[in-house]
Amino acid sequence: MELSQCLPFWGSLSKEQQCLLEQSTVLNHVSKGQIIHNGTEDCVGILVLQTGQLRGYSLSSEGREVTLYRLFERDVCVLSAYCMLNSLQFDITVAAEKDSVFWRIPPNIYKSVMEQSAPMANYTTELIASRLSDVMWLLDQILYKHLDSRIAGFLVSEARLNGENTLNLTHEEIAHHLGSAREVVTRMLKYFANEGMVELGRGKVVLKDVDELERIGNESLR
Amino acid sequence: MELSQCLPFWGSLSKEQQCLLEQSTVLNHVSKGQIIHNGTEDCVGILVLQTGQLRGYSLSSEGREVTLYRLFERDVCVLSAYCMLNSLQFDITVAAEKDSVFWRIPPNIYKSVMEQSAPMANYTTELIASRLSDVMWLLDQILYKHLDSRIAGFLVSEARLNGENTLNLTHEEIAHHLGSAREVVTRMLKYFANEGMVELGRGKVVLKDVDELERIGNESLR
Repeated sequence: MELSQCLPFWGSLSKEQQCLLEQSTVLNHVSKGQIIHNGTEDCVGILVLQTGQLRGYSLSSEGREVTLYRLFERDVCVLSAYCMLNSLQFDITVAAEKDSVFWRIPPNIYKSVMEQSAPMANYTTELIASRLSDVMWLLDQILYKHLDSRIAGFLVSEARLNGENTLNLTHEEIAHHLGSAREVVTRMLKYFANEGMVELGRGKVVLKDVDELERIGNESLR
Repeated sequence: MELSQCLPFWGSLSKEQQCLLEQSTVLNHVSKGQIIHNGTEDCVGILVLQTGQLRGYSLSSEGREVTLYRLFERDVCVLSAYCMLNSLQFDITVAAEKDSVFWRIPPNIYKSVMEQSAPMANYTTELIASRLSDVMWLLDQILYKHLDSRIAGFLVSEARLNGENTLNLTHEEIAHHLGSAREVVTRMLKYFANEGMVELGRGKVVLKDVDELERIGNESLR
């Protein structure tokens, strides 16, 4: 796969602009668990994922986490280049959920080309709008759903993502995805286990009744 | 005030592009309380506020609300032109909080010029990034603050916004701003009243101890 295949505006750039981007782009290999972008400590740039899986999350000063979005093959991460946009006023962390390979375009280079190119700027607008939609979805979940519904929905979507009903996740990891506390997640998982919907093991959750979990996952508050 | 003074990219447009925008833009007058944009029922376009105050909020199917952002003089609302961007996949409502006058640019016209103009597209990227920052701030509040802290912070910021310590707001309106339930807000306000921080009247809240409310408003969870 080439960088140019992942960037739909590529064909509209001049040869000079294409060269500038290609020459400054670096291919990175990271291992599962590695932190790629850490709040405002760095401004690593635009990430274009070749293989693997990345997770963008918010981290509170007290160590609580909530998953904001996930990135898969060919996805582009723009929030790790926050210094490129004056109006991005918040901290996120981006980490590898699987061993991953990605291109990194330095923020100043990306910005200098984007300022010249309407197609590239329009594409970037869509990227930011897409992240806004992710966060709006999350806000909706938090405001209008009970935690049982959010956990059930999360388990079903993780099983689909991984293509199997055994999830290698600790209760703490689930809490981090959902912005909740471990004790609260443990209590709810035990309830699901008592009802026969899941089986719990050390560092894993096995889904036994996906239909029922899905039904609960679709419930709204009240 | 002219439309061109509110749009920083104006000078970079061609005469034809400026004419196209000017000829298709409509000046609207709305009264306090009027709904301007209602979810996906319509796609009213880009709003440029001349005078007044607008509120963008999310509305659940059960009628619960939460304030996402506010717009003041010279602010530009792009989420009411959601059909212009494929990646904006959520519903919001925009209503007038005061009698307001705004220009409305049709979404198809704005989009057609933005596709040609890098400065306009870059400006629009910043607008969307700014709304994303608003929603991230809100998410942070909801995840990491107790409701007493959120209500106290809201009362102080409303008092600053209006320049007086008497707020003409019902408990239900406060709940709608914060995405909470009226009963919960009433309970908390009564607690604040017992502690001498506020006085409650019919449809109003009078702030008596702004310093203490501000202190509570700055507290984080745990």
